[in-house]
Amino acid sequence: MNTKAKGSKGERELIHFFNQNGWSAIRAAGSGSQRYPAPDVLAGNAMRRIAIECKVTAENKKYLFPEEIEQLRTFATKFGAEAWIGVHFPSEPWYFLMLEDIENTGKCWAISLEIAKRKGLKVEELLGISELLKKEENKA
Amino acid sequence: MNTKAKGSKGERELIHFFNQNGWSAIRAAGSGSQRYPAPDVLAGNAMRRIAIECKVTAENKKYLFPEEIEQLRTFATKFGAEAWIGVHFPSEPWYFLMLEDIENTGKCWAISLEIAKRKGLKVEELLGISELLKKEENKA
Repeated sequence: MNTKAKGSKGERELIHFFNQNGWSAIRAAGSGSQRYPAPDVLAGNAMRRIAIECKVTAENKKYLFPEEIEQLRTFATKFGAEAWIGVHFPSEPWYFLMLEDIENTGKCWAISLEIAKRKGLKVEELLGISELLKKEENKA
Repeated sequence: MNTKAKGSKGERELIHFFNQNGWSAIRAAGSGSQRYPAPDVLAGNAMRRIAIECKVTAENKKYLFPEEIEQLRTFATKFGAEAWIGVHFPSEPWYFLMLEDIENTGKCWAISLEIAKRKGLKVEELLGISELLKKEENKA
């Protein structure tokens, strides 16, 4: 499976997770090739809206172009959504980072696996359900 | 151009209109073939979120399956968005109808051109900018 196919598969897994937890979520058509800024995934519930740019990599560091960051920020601000970068490294869960936690290397932006693990949220933390899951585990 | 291509073109025109008026908007990837409910277009600004199921027809009446209505309602309720059906008849502008304005024919739902014209909103009315446009015209 190539990187693009892995990206789509990863995005569908996120859509599944959101829906399983009471959120609605959609994947954007051809994001990246669109005329106007669009995130890869847009999820929402009655209280929050989350715009996610999704990145899948086979390396241990993922680089992002400044325009990708700017377009996500623009979309999120206009839509009234939170802006998050989701990054998927091999054999790791998705990590979600706020834009201010992404490292500026000068010419572009980067997320290392180490930064992702230290500053990123897992999807259940992003949705604020990790505490609920822990309570359920303690009960069992 | 076939109906599907016309549908995509029409959706892109709506995305353009939303963006030109300070909204963010995205088209959903493969909506209709997705596992979870998803509208064709999802638009938002700081105050409102609008989920739209888009229908293009070459006839003067467009039929909808009950599942299409239900899925739009489900998505919109969970996401915290307004649910609208956008319908495009030949040589007409887009009309947007609330779900309660769609006629139940028994087995399915239908929107006639006559109902669309009588109960539907044009896109500038949907966005609440028609009054602004009128004021601008009066000034000029």
